[in-house]
Formats: sequence, C-alpha cells, structure tokens
Amino acid sequence: MQDSFQFPNTIEVCLTPALFSVKPSGKEVIVVLSDILRATTSICTAFENRAKSIIPVATLDEARQLKKEGYLVASEQDGKKLDFADFGNSAFSFTREAVEGKTLVYCTTNGTRALEIAKPASKIAIGAFINLSALASWLVYQDKSIVVLCSGWKGKFCLEDTLFAGALTEKLLGHPTFETSCDSAFAAMDLWNIAKSDLFGYIKKAEHYQRLKELGLDDVVPYSFRIDLTGVIPVFENNEIVDVSKHRDKIIKEK
Amino acid sequence: MQDSFQFPNTIEVCLTPALFSVKPSGKEVIVVLSDILRATTSICTAFENRAKSIIPVATLDEARQLKKEGYLVASEQDGKKLDFADFGNSAFSFTREAVEGKTLVYCTTNGTRALEIAKPASKIAIGAFINLSALASWLVYQDKSIVVLCSGWKGKFCLEDTLFAGALTEKLLGHPTFETSCDSAFAAMDLWNIAKSDLFGYIKKAEHYQRLKELGLDDVVPYSFRIDLTGVIPVFENNEIVDVSKHRDKIIKEK
Repeated sequence: MQDSFQFPNTIEVCLTPALFSVKPSGKEVIVVLSDILRATTSICTAFENRAKSIIPVATLDEARQLKKEGYLVASEQDGKKLDFADFGNSAFSFTREAVEGKTLVYCTTNGTRALEIAKPASKIAIGAFINLSALASWLVYQDKSIVVLCSGWKGKFCLEDTLFAGALTEKLLGHPTFETSCDSAFAAMDLWNIAKSDLFGYIKKAEHYQRLKELGLDDVVPYSFRIDLTGVIPVFENNEIVDVSKHRDKIIKEK
Repeated sequence: MQDSFQFPNTIEVCLTPALFSVKPSGKEVIVVLSDILRATTSICTAFENRAKSIIPVATLDEARQLKKEGYLVASEQDGKKLDFADFGNSAFSFTREAVEGKTLVYCTTNGTRALEIAKPASKIAIGAFINLSALASWLVYQDKSIVVLCSGWKGKFCLEDTLFAGALTEKLLGHPTFETSCDSAFAAMDLWNIAKSDLFGYIKKAEHYQRLKELGLDDVVPYSFRIDLTGVIPVFENNEIVDVSKHRDKIIKEK
C-alpha cells in the first residue's frame, strides 16, 4: 500500500529485459515499457484511433488461436503480414476506420517478453515518443517510483528504446518529487541530449533502423520519433492494455 | 585458425556480463575486460610496477588458500584490507617495491565473474584508461574481432566501464580494419565524447564513484581516469594474467 505522500520517488532505467528486477520494497513501482520500433508506438497509435483494448501475445500460435475466437489480429513475420492476420505490426495499420471500438491482438516477441517480466510491478504503462508528455504528466500524478524498461532487440541493448528512456527520465526529473542515482538513467539522458535535435538523423546508425530498412519497413521510423502526437496512456491491466487517459474519457463522452 | 588477412574485423561492446555471449564463428574473438574502478586499473598498475603475473580469484576462500600456499594476496571487504591479505584492491597498493618480480593473487568479484564468462574467447585482455593506446595498438596488430566486456557492478550497467569501451572503440575505428554496427558501441562512443573533456568531472555522478567516496576509497578515482600512463598489455592465459607487451620484453632485458 502506498503511503499518503512519499517523495522523492526514484527513476531507474533498465537497458534490456535481461537486466530487469523489480526490487521488493515498501514502495510500489510503475514499469514503463519502451519498444519504440515498433510495438509501443503502434499500441499508442491504436488507442489514439480509439481502439477499445489490446491483447499482447508473444507467439503466432496464441495469435492464431485468438483470431479463431473472433479477434482482430496484428501479426507479421520477416516484415510480411501473416495470412491469418488482419494487420501487420506497423503503427500505420491502425487507422481509425480499422480499430475504433475494437479489441485487437498484437503479436510482438520483444514487447511481450518485456511485459511478461514486468508483471510483478504495481502497474505497467506503455511509453513512446508520440505519448511522451502525456505519459510523464500521468506518472507524476501517480506518485510512485518508476522503472523504464527498454525492450531491446532479442535481449540486447538498442539505441531507440534507450533514447526514449532518457527523454522520459529528463522530463520526470524536472519535477521535484523525482530523483535518480542510476547510471543507466544518466547514460540514457546523455544520449537523448545528443540525439534530440535530430532524432531521426541520429537513429539512422541504429541496428534496428537498418533491419527495418532492409525489410522495406522503415516508412514508420520518422513517425515513431515524433513527439507528443497523442494524449493516450496505455496501461496493462488484467492481461489486456487499455487507455487510462482523460483523453479516453473525452472520447467515451463524445460517442 | 585465423586466415592470412581478414577484414574488416568487428567491434562490439557488451554493457554488462549478463548480456555477454561469444558467438561461435570462424573468426576468433578477443575479449577486452573493462573494470575501471578498480580491478583492471589495479592490474595494469601492478604490471607497470613489474609484477610477474596475477592470479585472479572470485572468492575470499580461494584468496585465503593461495595465501597459505605462499602467494602475495590483494583482498578487501567493504573497503578494508582483510587480515590475511598483503594488500587492498587499490591500484596504489601495487608499488614497485611491493610487487616487482612477484606473482600476486587479486580477489575481485565483478572482474573475476567477467573473466569467467569470457573464457570461450580466443584471448582475454585487460583494458583501462591507463593503458588505452598501448592496448589499442596491440589489438590492431592481432587482426581479430573485438568484444569489449564491461564488468559493471553486480551485473548492472555502469558508466565508467562504458566510457572506457567507448574510448577504445573510437580508437579502433580510426583504423581501416575495424568496423561496428553495434548499438552499444555507438552509445559508448557518444558517452565517451560527452565525458572526455572532463572525465573525472563526468564520473562524479556515477554510482560507483559515490560508493567509493562513502567508503573513503575515492583517492584512486582521478588516477583511474588518466590516459596512457603505461604500455602494459595484461592478457589472461592459463589461469593467470601476464603482460605480453614489448614493454615487458624491455623490462626483462633490463634485469
């Protein structure tokens, strides 16, 4: 249980899932998942386009099974949408027309693995450059310590998830209730400060950008590094992801 | 076996031992161990002061056993030299008077753990800021791919080992036989470039510096970030570390 008002809350950055541990402590921790290319960017986009909820799965078998149960499924292999799926994994698949009011299944190996190991946390939020400021404000309001968990690529460190971790850490440290003494957080902020004036230019050296380019899937990269396109706050609860933002309340009221 | 001339050789940076794997490949790999505060800096210092060899051990029991067998032992706990030991773990312990011509046992948890997991590599070299350029020249001459393995702190990422990895990567990439496409290497070089104009100033935010300061062991920190104080190339072979540099040949000839 959370005390009435505890501060400072700490921020830590975990550079890959292999390094993750939520420490047992009296203070509850929110894990923010960063998988910029492409899962967390795609998930934010789907909610911006008013998806009802998203069920993340790690394997094609689970995705195929849920397709049989009538869900819309986003799944691809080697950059190609799979036959049984309704969408690929690109943010650009999740248009208003396609997803509004729907529950989607999103098959992502790296993102789902990170989600699995983060389950001991109090809450798991989905972070991307496109929801950076909205997420930061929500996190301040939660008054809990934060671990930013970078999904990486097959367990390895990757630049793009670390840059987002740096951007979020810097924003939160602007608030007096947060502090950090975490070397990974310092490194992530320093990298963010090198990259931020030309994020897309910086990321061209990243391994993941090169992989997407070879697969012809790099169209979504500039979009993935745009900041504050949406106010959604996707949070993982009861095995699905929902948008807990005021933005969502507004959408529901509109409808 | 190595082909007559293969290039480019690759450079990868492994940010913590938890992320390490030497890939099976036709090309042999040299692992460079980075444990700046304090093991690799201390080991280089001991060889600069003409130690004959160093046996690294991970546990106090091993250290105690080797003391009984007549070795000089460097070992401390919570910053205090242990009763049975001849030295603590600081580089400043290893004076010419104390170590010249001797075999030392060095007890270091993080460094030895990194050494253990690096054993599948073709060779393991000991890197520190104080032997940066000498090591880089030797590595170029070896004509093999390189993995810089950061020891970290209890398996976690740490800034100081990463800065060294960045400095070494940048030096090697100045040579046409090396290339990298490793995100960790790019990140390490970027951090090095932020820090290099005032390394000691930069490292004051590091967790490990803060720990050493609390223990009153930070006297060795400025020294640990001085560059090119020695020409030694400590290499791990047959369960001990020896200096394979020309420097050593010169010393032997002098004696």
